[in-house]
Amino acid sequence: MTPLEQLKKELRIVASLKGATAVLHWDQETYMPQNSGEARADQIALLESLTHEKFIGDKIRGPLSELVDLDSGEVINDLKGENRRLVHEIWKDFHRASALPKEFIEEMARIASHGQQIWVKAKTENNFKKFAPILEKIINLKFKEIEYLDKKETPYDTLLDEYEPGITSTEVTKIFKDIKARLVPLVQKITQSKIDTGQAILYQDYDEQKQWEFGLMALKDMGYDLNHGRQDRSAHPFTIEFHPTDVRITTRLKPNDLMAGFSSTMHEGGHGLYEQGLQAESFGTPFSQSISHGIHESQSRLWENLVALSKPFWQYYYPKLQKVFPDQLNAVALDQFYRAINTIKPSLIRIEADEATYNLHIMLRFEVEKMVINDRLPVAELPEMWNNKMEEYLGIRPPNDSLGVLQDVHWSGGGFGYFPTYTLGNLYNVPIMNKAKTEIDDYEKKIASGNLMELREWLLNNIYSIGRRKTASELIMDITGAPLSAAPFLDYLEEKYSEIYSL
Amino acid sequence: MTPLEQLKKELRIVASLKGATAVLHWDQETYMPQNSGEARADQIALLESLTHEKFIGDKIRGPLSELVDLDSGEVINDLKGENRRLVHEIWKDFHRASALPKEFIEEMARIASHGQQIWVKAKTENNFKKFAPILEKIINLKFKEIEYLDKKETPYDTLLDEYEPGITSTEVTKIFKDIKARLVPLVQKITQSKIDTGQAILYQDYDEQKQWEFGLMALKDMGYDLNHGRQDRSAHPFTIEFHPTDVRITTRLKPNDLMAGFSSTMHEGGHGLYEQGLQAESFGTPFSQSISHGIHESQSRLWENLVALSKPFWQYYYPKLQKVFPDQLNAVALDQFYRAINTIKPSLIRIEADEATYNLHIMLRFEVEKMVINDRLPVAELPEMWNNKMEEYLGIRPPNDSLGVLQDVHWSGGGFGYFPTYTLGNLYNVPIMNKAKTEIDDYEKKIASGNLMELREWLLNNIYSIGRRKTASELIMDITGAPLSAAPFLDYLEEKYSEIYSL
Repeated sequence: MTPLEQLKKELRIVASLKGATAVLHWDQETYMPQNSGEARADQIALLESLTHEKFIGDKIRGPLSELVDLDSGEVINDLKGENRRLVHEIWKDFHRASALPKEFIEEMARIASHGQQIWVKAKTENNFKKFAPILEKIINLKFKEIEYLDKKETPYDTLLDEYEPGITSTEVTKIFKDIKARLVPLVQKITQSKIDTGQAILYQDYDEQKQWEFGLMALKDMGYDLNHGRQDRSAHPFTIEFHPTDVRITTRLKPNDLMAGFSSTMHEGGHGLYEQGLQAESFGTPFSQSISHGIHESQSRLWENLVALSKPFWQYYYPKLQKVFPDQLNAVALDQFYRAINTIKPSLIRIEADEATYNLHIMLRFEVEKMVINDRLPVAELPEMWNNKMEEYLGIRPPNDSLGVLQDVHWSGGGFGYFPTYTLGNLYNVPIMNKAKTEIDDYEKKIASGNLMELREWLLNNIYSIGRRKTASELIMDITGAPLSAAPFLDYLEEKYSEIYSL
Repeated sequence: MTPLEQLKKELRIVASLKGATAVLHWDQETYMPQNSGEARADQIALLESLTHEKFIGDKIRGPLSELVDLDSGEVINDLKGENRRLVHEIWKDFHRASALPKEFIEEMARIASHGQQIWVKAKTENNFKKFAPILEKIINLKFKEIEYLDKKETPYDTLLDEYEPGITSTEVTKIFKDIKARLVPLVQKITQSKIDTGQAILYQDYDEQKQWEFGLMALKDMGYDLNHGRQDRSAHPFTIEFHPTDVRITTRLKPNDLMAGFSSTMHEGGHGLYEQGLQAESFGTPFSQSISHGIHESQSRLWENLVALSKPFWQYYYPKLQKVFPDQLNAVALDQFYRAINTIKPSLIRIEADEATYNLHIMLRFEVEKMVINDRLPVAELPEMWNNKMEEYLGIRPPNDSLGVLQDVHWSGGGFGYFPTYTLGNLYNVPIMNKAKTEIDDYEKKIASGNLMELREWLLNNIYSIGRRKTASELIMDITGAPLSAAPFLDYLEEKYSEIYSL
């Protein structure tokens, strides 16, 4: 076996272990009994520690050191073509992982697992104080993590780099400023407009089982493979992959909110398609891994917003939806429905926000996170800080912490630096979609006739199957011919909502 | 840390890994997508290999060797009281495990995982030929396993010893002969009797959801803790434990067979109570492990048969059942229902067999297994051999292999030597129950008023919490004051069914 073959073999083992660990996470969030969390936290911590041990162990270090300089990451072997990229990407992961001590990995995993379980209870009970002590522990571990890793512009940048490699918080701040400059006036104009989009029709009584089946139909239509995945319910929707042949999504349904569940299904379906589209034959290597969280989010948001909030999509699906819910929708015309689902309105919950104000939720979280990590904002001050910013950006104040600072799962699992990738996803996906539309003949007609598979094929070829053969900025440059900018997304929003709100 | 403390710490890690692996098995049998089996087989094989590696590794070998002679198992340290038993039991497991090479463990795990998946399909499609090649591989691996392990009376004894330590196939053969001598005439008398037990009432249309809820109610009443466990559906019902705080059971429901589902729920509930009753504080050591498969089966059968087929039980539950299924049962009196559920009738499927003929199914399997392992009976001859013995013992011939040799999961996962433990369970549980009845005041009145918890407490104190502090024969001797014998079980059957069938 060559060093590269040896490396690939060991990486498959590491990925198998990660997949096994992911099954435990999935179970924890879906079916695990209420009081079984302690043992599960132990199991997950143990597996994460074993995974880490294997990944930075001699069986990988050995062959890797024959291919790259372990300190600099420079490829020293005469590898050709994409194999040079491959080993460099492997080295990046190895370099980061080997900076973190085994004890740290194990503690982080255990605390994160506890954190998520405590968060679920604290959110249900609307009790931030219940969550605060473990959150403090998590944050202190993140400070430790930052110390172990390579220094960046700011401590926060070290965390951000894990989710969106190559981008800095300075760049994010600049792009977010560009968004704010056009988005805030747009949202203001909309809020002041006298158009009523008739959103109330979405909040009638919608049988959950029927919602579930309608969502499943759309998932199948878009090519999500239920023989290699499944959908379940969980408190917070997520996508999780054990292998490209076993990619699972969850959704949540509300009996009085039609689009909360459907949007979440389409969103996670988008993530799921990406993971199912990764190359199984490269399993274990970066070529079978998604590029970044931002690119991942672009794929979920592409389906959730650019497809499933578009008129052509509903030209096909709305008559079907009316058949499922005739009492609620037979008197509502397609145009009315289209306006209703495209209501822009400041609201409390990020994952239920519309595609415009959503980004204000993200800016808030980005700023709060930076303060927590860079300025050591005390945990006790988080609810107040959150509520103040909600008032400042969205003009509304959460009446309680469950609808405020406790709403998101991320921090409870240690996911600081993750939030900006959601808005980056929005920014990536509009130019990607613009390009896809030029390459798919009669794109709108196809969507309007229920043909989602051609779009899925295009995404499979241009994004899913690429893996980490390209960085996020290379991918965007290759597909769109331009670097990342807020402009296409803002153009899209302005054009779409000027029509809906007659601005 | 003392060597014993060190040992306990490492054993907890091994047990945590086993628990994690069990989650993957559970998922495979309940929710895993249809085409995700390859990756799952890899994950399970990997985890089993890592578990084995850890268990026989230096961190356990080291402290263990300070406490016992690794060759003979003799305790060499001046440990006191139950700690001597503890380290001897640990040594037994270590001795067996360290005889098996890592590669063998990994291959066995992978083949068993494939085997179970292929078995499900072969059974569904009624296609033994689809199953035969993998079964042959499994059997060849069992031959290898026998070679690695300590020699016993016969090759089959080596396998039997894993499930029922301390018993020999000669003893089993002798006990089975005793059973045959009284059971075959009893079943004959019953079959010739003209009493109609009115079993048809059990095969009406029974809504599955209502069956599910009725079963769950009984599970809760008997003390199965749904905050530390859950019930799901699967092709073949099973109990699986990840930790005493996370013990899960499955059942299967049939819309036209009331007792198939309920019996399976009570059966697995009995297993589940045992596992939930093991001491969490000894987790990882033999003191937190069940004694043997036979004792485990005694606990499932005690609830399934001795409790849930008894008249006092239904004095309490039958009125409730009538409320759930008034159309089907309101015209049926309690006595009629009691007779119906206690019908003795030769049938094709083991897990649906009555408590008398059940043991003939087991004898058949025991004899076939012995031929496969000791006499190398070719796999291709299994269906014919099976069907012939069915005709000989039960007087009926399976019309196809799904109802014959393909019906059980055990062999597909490598479980040769397991079957006899089912009948041993029947033999253990009657004298255990006889003793419990003398120690629980007004036992029958309590059951008849829905108080199942006092029995559960008695079992918790006398069996569940004991772990492997006693061997099966010590436990039976301590509880009943006599060694294992077929007589109490046969007395029970003869007394019960003489009344029902007016013999």
